[in-house]
Amino acid sequence: MAELPELKGNMLIAQSGGPTAVINQTLVGAVLEARKHTCIQRVLGSKHGIQGILDEEFVNLSRETTANLEKVAATPSSALGSVRKKPTEEDCARIFEVLQKHDVRYFFYIGGNDSAETAHIINQHARKAKYDFRCYHLCKTIDNDLRQNDHTPGFGSAARFVASAFMGDNQDNRALGGVKLNVVMGRHAGFLTAASALAKVYPDDGPHLIYLPERNFAMGRFCKDVKRVMKEHGRCVVAVSEGISDAKGTPIIAAHTKEVDSHGNLQLSGTGALGDLLANELKKRTGIQRVRADTFGYLQRSFPDVVSATDAKEARGVGVAGVRFAVKSHANGSVAIKRKKTKRYAVGFERVTLKAVAKETRHMPAAYINKDGNGVTPAFLDYVRPLVGRLPQMGRLKDHPLPKT
Amino acid sequence: MAELPELKGNMLIAQSGGPTAVINQTLVGAVLEARKHTCIQRVLGSKHGIQGILDEEFVNLSRETTANLEKVAATPSSALGSVRKKPTEEDCARIFEVLQKHDVRYFFYIGGNDSAETAHIINQHARKAKYDFRCYHLCKTIDNDLRQNDHTPGFGSAARFVASAFMGDNQDNRALGGVKLNVVMGRHAGFLTAASALAKVYPDDGPHLIYLPERNFAMGRFCKDVKRVMKEHGRCVVAVSEGISDAKGTPIIAAHTKEVDSHGNLQLSGTGALGDLLANELKKRTGIQRVRADTFGYLQRSFPDVVSATDAKEARGVGVAGVRFAVKSHANGSVAIKRKKTKRYAVGFERVTLKAVAKETRHMPAAYINKDGNGVTPAFLDYVRPLVGRLPQMGRLKDHPLPKT
Repeated sequence: MAELPELKGNMLIAQSGGPTAVINQTLVGAVLEARKHTCIQRVLGSKHGIQGILDEEFVNLSRETTANLEKVAATPSSALGSVRKKPTEEDCARIFEVLQKHDVRYFFYIGGNDSAETAHIINQHARKAKYDFRCYHLCKTIDNDLRQNDHTPGFGSAARFVASAFMGDNQDNRALGGVKLNVVMGRHAGFLTAASALAKVYPDDGPHLIYLPERNFAMGRFCKDVKRVMKEHGRCVVAVSEGISDAKGTPIIAAHTKEVDSHGNLQLSGTGALGDLLANELKKRTGIQRVRADTFGYLQRSFPDVVSATDAKEARGVGVAGVRFAVKSHANGSVAIKRKKTKRYAVGFERVTLKAVAKETRHMPAAYINKDGNGVTPAFLDYVRPLVGRLPQMGRLKDHPLPKT
Repeated sequence: MAELPELKGNMLIAQSGGPTAVINQTLVGAVLEARKHTCIQRVLGSKHGIQGILDEEFVNLSRETTANLEKVAATPSSALGSVRKKPTEEDCARIFEVLQKHDVRYFFYIGGNDSAETAHIINQHARKAKYDFRCYHLCKTIDNDLRQNDHTPGFGSAARFVASAFMGDNQDNRALGGVKLNVVMGRHAGFLTAASALAKVYPDDGPHLIYLPERNFAMGRFCKDVKRVMKEHGRCVVAVSEGISDAKGTPIIAAHTKEVDSHGNLQLSGTGALGDLLANELKKRTGIQRVRADTFGYLQRSFPDVVSATDAKEARGVGVAGVRFAVKSHANGSVAIKRKKTKRYAVGFERVTLKAVAKETRHMPAAYINKDGNGVTPAFLDYVRPLVGRLPQMGRLKDHPLPKT
């Protein structure tokens, strides 16, 4: 694409979808980068994503000090507020009216594939209306399910939380025995649940079984797997994606909740229903007495101080890269993270089209899932390890046995 | 009590009840201190508390290196394994048979009030059998519900986890709105749930409501409280103890689970039932649409890297003090943490009787609970703040509003 002439005007940035521990790094990266470019005049923030545009609820980010922005960058969850909303045709008409009124020429929408779709729709309307502006999607999602990306900002920190939680929980299960089920976020993609595998330090450590949305879930098979592990280790730690579904594609949790958002997504989080359902079935079918289920819930996406330094740095980089792409050359796009083929882990930021990222989900590649569909492969561990940073050390007694008298 | 003559023999140590993030500090503190006293010959560890004594499942802790012990000390959950078991008369007879066979003269049982009771029973049987040994309970519990103690090892780290989790979750709720309920551990004592109040940085931060087992829970009142907060802030974060009960003393969760352990305790953790029950009632009675519930579950007691340095240090100190008390002067007792009346936070370790700590629960003092029974007082915050260490910083945009056009 040819370089575009410099475009003078205001910038608007907004955050959408589920928050992450590093989403404000992307916000602050973009806001601070914008200050270096004279073509960007005022930097506005929209409250609660596109809802703030519709309601004209803007804040003036140009008045924020760098020191305060840095504090915000290190704080989890979306500082501008978030929203789950798919704009209607009517909404889009209203959005352009507001953008034009505020002379917004640079628009950045931080979010996942639903947000990329929203940015894509807004951009199409802008083109139809011949409104000259630069429209960017800045990637974010703990689910790590965006196409075109090696991985996404927010995933590394959430994966670090999940791995740490399983490390501690594996010790807990080792102390008291029985079966422990942990339900991890991930509607269609199992990356985050799979990251639990990083918790394994010793060969007998959990998670012993990992169930992902990419493979059909069968209750009978699950009970058989658990019984086998119980026989081998006398205990069992299981990681389960909230989105696991049966052979017909029906989510296992579907019998228990009907709540959907405006994108038509079923409510999977913020309830312990799936964990309790699995624990009860397991008790009933196997007779195992001590079965416990925890649902990690919202903790895994917004926990302070359990942040991957790599993730925070890359999230910042995505914001910076977005502004540079928009100012320097291209009308629209999405900033994607690409892993370099170097021996030492490194990434670059590339511009891809909005359409290439919008809506559809990236799944775990088959090479990352074991053949039984209840665990991950070493290839996945190699993929995920650099994203989470150095994990806590787990010590263990040598257990020098004493002969019985 | 007069000083006792030096007693030569082996030492046995065991861990019991729910694990904590720092319970191995107490174990390692005692094991390393024992190495300084020649009257203690071999240091044995019993696997899974008194179960290991009954089964004669011992490990030789004298063969552990200091370096490995230090790794274990920094690892959450009980390295020797744990158990929830109240010994029968028959068990006690067997326990003494085993103790005598192994020439165990120093016995340390790390645990909560149930474990103190177990130590007390074992000690009574030893006296009856005229078996000469020193029997100590070393305090531990995230519930912070031991009598005679200002606070207990494990509580500070769990409280730090709860406070951090609420800090992140408050940001999450601020971004997406609605009602968020978080169920926190605590069967009879609300200390851990109350620690969520440390998450409040700005006046409108959550938790906005805190429900403790020390006050009767009424569904109607709860719904009214939430509606009031929703009206004021447009969102609401609620902390709920798993042990909340109605005016008759029946746990709110009781309708949903019947599982009890050998101490007769109802299963409260490892299920999302209470959170889901409250969320459903709230939706039904108030019509509020977005209500989410998370149950922190086992994460809060064994999470690596979310450890209070003060807690870790004191847990170590309890183990050291126990061995010193046993070697130097007293036949039996429990090591209690007493806060000094100094301006700067400081504690001392004192010996109290086993009976004084056993079985009964310490509750939140009335001065720590607000008059409406749905929050805490500044006195509680002063009490708890030094126990958790410096919490993460939460930044916030200044929100300079932009006039609507």
